[in-house]
Amino acid sequence: MGHKTEEMLQRNASKVRQVASAARSKVLTIDSMNERVKAVQYAVRGPIVIRAGEIENQLKAGSTEFPFDEVIKCNIGDAHAMQQKPITYLRQVVTGTCYPDLMDGENNNGVIPKDASEQARRILGSCGGGSVGAYSNSAGVPVIREDVAKYIEKRDGIGNVDPENIVLSTGASGSITTLLKMLVNGPQDGIMIPIPQYPLYSACLAEFNATVVPYYLNEETNWSLDLEELERAYSESDVKPKAICIINPGNPTGQVASYENIKKVLNFAYSRGLFVLADEVYQDNVYAEGAKFHSFRKVLLEMGEPYASEVELASFHSTSKGYMGECGFRSGYMEILNMDPDVKAQLVKLISSRLCPPVPGQAAMDVVVNPPVPGDDSYELYIQERTKVLADLKYKAKLVADTFNAIEGISCQPVQGAMYAFPNIKLPEKFIKEAGQKGLVPDAYYCTLLLEQTGICVVAGSGFRQKAGSWHFRTTILPPKEKMEKFAKLFTEFHLGILAKYE
Amino acid sequence: MGHKTEEMLQRNASKVRQVASAARSKVLTIDSMNERVKAVQYAVRGPIVIRAGEIENQLKAGSTEFPFDEVIKCNIGDAHAMQQKPITYLRQVVTGTCYPDLMDGENNNGVIPKDASEQARRILGSCGGGSVGAYSNSAGVPVIREDVAKYIEKRDGIGNVDPENIVLSTGASGSITTLLKMLVNGPQDGIMIPIPQYPLYSACLAEFNATVVPYYLNEETNWSLDLEELERAYSESDVKPKAICIINPGNPTGQVASYENIKKVLNFAYSRGLFVLADEVYQDNVYAEGAKFHSFRKVLLEMGEPYASEVELASFHSTSKGYMGECGFRSGYMEILNMDPDVKAQLVKLISSRLCPPVPGQAAMDVVVNPPVPGDDSYELYIQERTKVLADLKYKAKLVADTFNAIEGISCQPVQGAMYAFPNIKLPEKFIKEAGQKGLVPDAYYCTLLLEQTGICVVAGSGFRQKAGSWHFRTTILPPKEKMEKFAKLFTEFHLGILAKYE
Repeated sequence: MGHKTEEMLQRNASKVRQVASAARSKVLTIDSMNERVKAVQYAVRGPIVIRAGEIENQLKAGSTEFPFDEVIKCNIGDAHAMQQKPITYLRQVVTGTCYPDLMDGENNNGVIPKDASEQARRILGSCGGGSVGAYSNSAGVPVIREDVAKYIEKRDGIGNVDPENIVLSTGASGSITTLLKMLVNGPQDGIMIPIPQYPLYSACLAEFNATVVPYYLNEETNWSLDLEELERAYSESDVKPKAICIINPGNPTGQVASYENIKKVLNFAYSRGLFVLADEVYQDNVYAEGAKFHSFRKVLLEMGEPYASEVELASFHSTSKGYMGECGFRSGYMEILNMDPDVKAQLVKLISSRLCPPVPGQAAMDVVVNPPVPGDDSYELYIQERTKVLADLKYKAKLVADTFNAIEGISCQPVQGAMYAFPNIKLPEKFIKEAGQKGLVPDAYYCTLLLEQTGICVVAGSGFRQKAGSWHFRTTILPPKEKMEKFAKLFTEFHLGILAKYE
Repeated sequence: MGHKTEEMLQRNASKVRQVASAARSKVLTIDSMNERVKAVQYAVRGPIVIRAGEIENQLKAGSTEFPFDEVIKCNIGDAHAMQQKPITYLRQVVTGTCYPDLMDGENNNGVIPKDASEQARRILGSCGGGSVGAYSNSAGVPVIREDVAKYIEKRDGIGNVDPENIVLSTGASGSITTLLKMLVNGPQDGIMIPIPQYPLYSACLAEFNATVVPYYLNEETNWSLDLEELERAYSESDVKPKAICIINPGNPTGQVASYENIKKVLNFAYSRGLFVLADEVYQDNVYAEGAKFHSFRKVLLEMGEPYASEVELASFHSTSKGYMGECGFRSGYMEILNMDPDVKAQLVKLISSRLCPPVPGQAAMDVVVNPPVPGDDSYELYIQERTKVLADLKYKAKLVADTFNAIEGISCQPVQGAMYAFPNIKLPEKFIKEAGQKGLVPDAYYCTLLLEQTGICVVAGSGFRQKAGSWHFRTTILPPKEKMEKFAKLFTEFHLGILAKYE
């Protein structure tokens, strides 16, 4: 070993903070890790949900230590986990792409019907090597992007959609994360998000070290989005907001925005120079009489110039919600409108470094945007299944809100759309004090007790953020009817018990 | 409208940088977007590859303007895109999970064989609601994590693996990205990466604003990893390195590390206090006589204490490579060893905010780690298919290296493993000068001409980084034999043409 090498080794040794020894400490510790990751919070799968999983495992293993025999998981919009049956046609198309031998046609087994086989073949024809085993283009399989474009055109009945503006992703989460990442450089960049919000938004902004500019939805008027509140939020922000996120239909709040309301938001975004992110993953989930889904794109185009060609808009959709509910496939897309071409090139580069979204999920997305139509062999079964899912959700949307509103100290706005109720709970002072003594946020303490005493797993309102001094929780409306009815009974008893004990 | 409101509106108006007008500029521009995203480079799907896609589309549309009739895509390790047939059993298990009616058993169609059906049923039994349509646990489906753990135990023949230390992900890329993100806080954190490297590493570090600490593989000794070079890189780094990444078998370089070499690296990581990231996605792709894959985990455990229980290690694997080559399913896993429990909790929280990896992909991963064994009904077909894929790759590994080595001015190290050759090209001075005049890196110019003149699409060495003044490109060995032979012929002519013109 030369002199130079020895010198280098010595220099290196002195560079090492800790001398290697039996007590050598970890390299990656809570102190040395990424601070921004530590700042991330995501209650939808937080400590209460982790605890619910533990209890479930104990129950499975035969434990009798709990005063209930099952966990009712209302923490996450996960329809299939709650026994919702898949739409047969969707699974047939996906199966055709994964195992082409099963498709209809000569030399094939033919268990996949003709129309599903045709759709699967068309998708495969647009895949590398004709296989879902190949990476797709970074922005998705070409024909699926085309089908998404046609779906949007048909849905909105206005304007053309360029498939080049459709970017498929790993769930809508993948698109939302990517776009927020594109937007922000640091704490000097603000993003307006609704409160309450789906916590992916605050989680991403924490991770990317950007500033949350909260605007509050008005609970009294069913979580409406008031223009004056947008102006207030913009005005009081320490940093210039760069974008505004809207979730419509609302998560966790279940409201559906009116056409006029959307117009006002777009006008605000235009005049204030904001990029618009429209989270529209619940566009097929509208239950209330009189409520109707209007896409931000449609309203924008109908506003005409200069809005239509100037407001930069991204809209998100997913296979996970709607009546398909295929969360496990992790598929979503974003449509971008009026994006600067140079920025779009950067977006494509960024997603290319992660290669592509899952291709079987993309095939599932193709069915979401291109389901059977009247006259197709599979139409009848498809429409039966679709109608049943949506009718069940509509029934439960009302059941859940009615249940809460019948209980003293609870009020719940109607669930117009999406998959959630977000009831307001008045907690007794004594309860709030006890929570404080235990170092817990009152609604988190409430949800913990609810889980431990009844097996019901919901997410505390604080996980979505809420007006100071108000307390809520979010429950899905997804468990099967009889379970939802059991939920209603157990929950009512629990809440009355809390009142009796603490008031 | 009240006085306060008006005041607020005026204040807001003055906050807006540009007055809304017909010439209103974009909110999100190349100047206002995330600087870190701009810094990302990813040549594997860069401009040359985008151009190849355009040419391919033109050829499909009947264009005759190119002096070739097809693009030979050697830019990416995408086996199925290159007509590699899927392993039937894998697709059967995935199909069983997606469309359970097709499984073996009473009332079922029975097109999925018994053993595949059993495997699919076991997976479904561990999924939410018994469905791949449900989100899985954030770290993956429990029985698949167990199967991965057993696979590693069996592969290494030493120690036990806790399924809690297995984290499934959206491709290995998903895990690598997550772990690098956990590790770094900013430019003060250095990560040692091999040069040449798979550009996901540099892309992530650019995005996370951390410092690349390059160490150079030694081309002369088949891209070996020399300890003295590691010490040099560590010594000369301006920041303290926090982790070291190793890619074994190598990408883009195709070498396979020896047991002794791995031991030295681990000893270095131990003494210098480095977290170890072992990219082992090509662990099933070893072709050369005498070369053998040893996992970093195995070597570490065999080194005994204090190494075995102190060196923090993450190892990555994927469904995309090996003999399965199922890139489109986007599935991977990481195994973590000796990670601080508090950091692990943060890791789980971070991945929870993205919900879960694609579940059909997880099912595919289960087959990668738990394929048929002798005695199973599907074993014979499986082993036939597996043997063919690996034998073809072995043949092409040699063909490609031999082709390059037979050409003047090209030298290529043997392709011991993985799916790539990384030949060294001596470029004439005149050619380098011409590239400079065109504002192109010489090897990128070379690869551009290669594409335009022959239809062969490869990635320039500069996309992976390389020793200053040396030029390379990466080609996969994946196209079918006859296409690889065509590649050899076309490439030889092209290169001789370059020499004739510029020397």
